[in-house]
Amino acid sequence: MSILVVGSVAFDTIATPSGRVNDILGGAATYFALAASYFTEVRMVAVVGDDFMPEHEAVLKNRGVDTRGIERTHGKTFRWGGQYLDNLNEAKTDFTELNVFEKFQPRIPKEYSDTQFLFLANIHPTLQTAVRLEMNGVRLTGGDTMNFWIQRTREELAETLKLVNVLLINDTETKMLADEKNLPRAANKVLAMGPNALVVKHGEYGATIFFGEGAFGLGSHPFRAPALPIEEVKDPTGAGDSFAGGFMGYIASQGEINREVLKRALFYGGVMGSFAVERFGTERLQNLTREEIDARFQIFRELTHLE
Amino acid sequence: MSILVVGSVAFDTIATPSGRVNDILGGAATYFALAASYFTEVRMVAVVGDDFMPEHEAVLKNRGVDTRGIERTHGKTFRWGGQYLDNLNEAKTDFTELNVFEKFQPRIPKEYSDTQFLFLANIHPTLQTAVRLEMNGVRLTGGDTMNFWIQRTREELAETLKLVNVLLINDTETKMLADEKNLPRAANKVLAMGPNALVVKHGEYGATIFFGEGAFGLGSHPFRAPALPIEEVKDPTGAGDSFAGGFMGYIASQGEINREVLKRALFYGGVMGSFAVERFGTERLQNLTREEIDARFQIFRELTHLE
Repeated sequence: MSILVVGSVAFDTIATPSGRVNDILGGAATYFALAASYFTEVRMVAVVGDDFMPEHEAVLKNRGVDTRGIERTHGKTFRWGGQYLDNLNEAKTDFTELNVFEKFQPRIPKEYSDTQFLFLANIHPTLQTAVRLEMNGVRLTGGDTMNFWIQRTREELAETLKLVNVLLINDTETKMLADEKNLPRAANKVLAMGPNALVVKHGEYGATIFFGEGAFGLGSHPFRAPALPIEEVKDPTGAGDSFAGGFMGYIASQGEINREVLKRALFYGGVMGSFAVERFGTERLQNLTREEIDARFQIFRELTHLE
Repeated sequence: MSILVVGSVAFDTIATPSGRVNDILGGAATYFALAASYFTEVRMVAVVGDDFMPEHEAVLKNRGVDTRGIERTHGKTFRWGGQYLDNLNEAKTDFTELNVFEKFQPRIPKEYSDTQFLFLANIHPTLQTAVRLEMNGVRLTGGDTMNFWIQRTREELAETLKLVNVLLINDTETKMLADEKNLPRAANKVLAMGPNALVVKHGEYGATIFFGEGAFGLGSHPFRAPALPIEEVKDPTGAGDSFAGGFMGYIASQGEINREVLKRALFYGGVMGSFAVERFGTERLQNLTREEIDARFQIFRELTHLE
């Protein structure tokens, strides 16, 4: 079944211990769409500038992504510069140029109105809410956010969270959102804000999904997927968005939403995140096969599987 | 089969968000011995002062621990004070009084000479090496160390590592010992220093075991055990030593050392660590049952187990 992602397309300038790249295609919606494209039909709503060339769109189209919702505006595409020279787990932002993204008003093409799954990537919560209300026929909505919105737009974010079924954020964001240092307690507070399930991403340690009481009729004990210890992390940019793409894409590909599907989705999220970081930008996500993905899924499974 | 632990007995003064305790029984060897006592016969070599009373020894004896190797010396027992008020994952040391521990020279009772498994808790690497050489008939030696020894006694530690089969340390220590920020690469460098296997403890995220090439005839891909997200962490003191006790104790309880035994041991390590932090000091480790332990083992297993 189809999934729509609404979020940023960007050109990134990135420095890591493995090298440096300038103005390569990135953005949360891009990583998400590419990762999800291995599981299901993906549609995109985003905004780009005059510098978004056919070769950039081709990266998405080659993976079958429906790009009709990518709006062209006069100006430059969103640009981000960051580095991971001291710490591969946390980006140090060098610059952010919002450019055309500053006035982003997501417009959903009519052809997307039958979309069944929705992912609200990390944008202003008011925009997330508007998109979600417009797409009121979706079966399941996933969402992301970040410390910036948690700190500055808490009220608006509270409204968004009432409309999101599965929130995907990291440990720090979870604790900040809940104002609580203990992870499971923080998770419970976040679930009380609206989501039926919360996926907390632990970076190299994997991710945990916490369920709200009665959510999906599943029982409330958490489930954890490990991450593969990776020797060569070239570029961590987009790992979280690729995780979300694998997670949501797998769910959208299944007929039903149940505990086992969500558990497997958590593994597929980790798998796609682990591929993303092996090369700079979206390179690795452009040329995978489902066989490679499923082979790594098995490795992840065996990583914690007892006889 | 029996296991001998050589390390510290201490009286700890601890402050956490859940409360404050003064001069309670602790020390790496104590936590290790109590945790291991649920799996196998445990022997201890340590040093204590005049303030070590029959009620303290009774804590160990009640769990069947052989305390004949605990040496009494005139003076005070090792004392440590620390707090976790800001961060439950890292202790801030308030004071360290080595007292009788400063001149600790481990003496192995003759009755211990048939011990088959050995754990060298966190003491000066030269003492670890001496004990290991004296116990040259053991089947498997586990060991711990810390940043203090890694930074100040690197050469002595290098000698110890050649004699240790399984080293159990945390992420930070692994990266410091290897002088390498990437965990799997750091793990490989540590394995090249001598150990056949390296257990890296990730705190609330579990632990990963890395295998040296050909170690135990097991193949070299790592295995990871998750940790249970715990709502009530009362006191993190001793979690790592309890992990080691569960890990080594389970191995010692099995007839053979193979990959499946080591995997299960990693789970039992996490289980014992998770119990330890639920109460202050060793309280929770004093009154467990094997049924409670195995029930939690199942929860840990289901936490990452796919159908």
